[in-house]
Amino acid sequence: MTEAVHVVPVVGMPEVGPGDSIADLILERTVLEHRDVVVVTSKIVSKAEGRLVDVDHADAAARAALIEEESVRVLRRRDELYISETRQGFICANAGVDFSNLVGGAALLPANPDRSARRIRDALEARTGLTLAVIVSDTFGRPWRRGVVDVALGCAGITAILDLRGTADAQGRPLEVTEVAVVDELASAADLVMGKADSVPVAIVRGTDPRWLREGSVRQEIVRPPREDLFR
Amino acid sequence: MTEAVHVVPVVGMPEVGPGDSIADLILERTVLEHRDVVVVTSKIVSKAEGRLVDVDHADAAARAALIEEESVRVLRRRDELYISETRQGFICANAGVDFSNLVGGAALLPANPDRSARRIRDALEARTGLTLAVIVSDTFGRPWRRGVVDVALGCAGITAILDLRGTADAQGRPLEVTEVAVVDELASAADLVMGKADSVPVAIVRGTDPRWLREGSVRQEIVRPPREDLFR
Repeated sequence: MTEAVHVVPVVGMPEVGPGDSIADLILERTVLEHRDVVVVTSKIVSKAEGRLVDVDHADAAARAALIEEESVRVLRRRDELYISETRQGFICANAGVDFSNLVGGAALLPANPDRSARRIRDALEARTGLTLAVIVSDTFGRPWRRGVVDVALGCAGITAILDLRGTADAQGRPLEVTEVAVVDELASAADLVMGKADSVPVAIVRGTDPRWLREGSVRQEIVRPPREDLFR
Repeated sequence: MTEAVHVVPVVGMPEVGPGDSIADLILERTVLEHRDVVVVTSKIVSKAEGRLVDVDHADAAARAALIEEESVRVLRRRDELYISETRQGFICANAGVDFSNLVGGAALLPANPDRSARRIRDALEARTGLTLAVIVSDTFGRPWRRGVVDVALGCAGITAILDLRGTADAQGRPLEVTEVAVVDELASAADLVMGKADSVPVAIVRGTDPRWLREGSVRQEIVRPPREDLFR
């Protein structure tokens, strides 16, 4: 693979509300190309899907109750920070409940982010006739590294993991690193043009390897089963 | 920020050996532009710096001894997989010791990846007269997600963490997510054009926000001190 990849922000997206079609909002603002990977932040997916709850931001007990409600297991807690396993299988801060950018409310993670990605992908493909992929992304911390990065919560039309087992390096020796989480790398690349403060909730990654564009699932491929996990 | 970002592979890099100038090898193959971020995999940095040791790949005890030698603390061990803290402060598999792509030997992580990045950056800037940034990247797993992604081990000429504290979102409300590990996102973006099997060890990220280009350090900004860490 020796081609360049381009990361293009979709600018001018409006505030999204329950029932809005994210596919329509995207297509009103940009011209997609064959095999584009469209990365959409989970925040606007949650809003479009009506995953909003009332909670008084000043009420610490109410905030904690909401986080616990969205968790199937709490791994660590320090003051108001929870690290827990969400209903969707992710391990992240505060069960992914987002209190920012909403006056007196919170956005929950999409109930099934792979399904959310499929719906947006299906709508985009139906309206354009193109082959497309969609990633629903969110911002996660990491246990041993400061700072957050964007990762994929759901995907459609693209493999989540690129499995290089059985392939060899340029010198013909078998590869040691064999399973690359390409949807997470794409989500991080998309964040480079999103700018948290600038409200760019959608970006397009253009020029990725066409072999990656087959049906995939973050839940099936990336979420690590507890039995495999050394840190749970 | 509403500009596109471009990720461009540097193709045709040769096998790198001790004493080679990575800056020269890059400049013989590509024309850099003002404010390019040059991402270099740690593997070729290790080779250029002579961080190579002899070890018989068939000797499991010798491999384990080498991994323990490069570790300051082992967090978990399962069969031949170690998760440990390296001398450089990273927590990763097998202390970053790379047995692949080397016949009967291993490559150790660069001793000081921020310094490695600075040396390459200084050489590139001296030869071109441009303002440039360099990231030294490697491939790490994650505890709760399958698959590996590229992250930054060292950087020069770019902030490792983009601190958005004190900024507001598009609606004027304070941001909840405030510290973005932009060098890790850039390393992941660069990997999209590297293709583990295709021997593209260098990529250029062009068009990033110019405000990110100030002196930074992965060690100082990203490596999480044990006292902050909930999972060590």
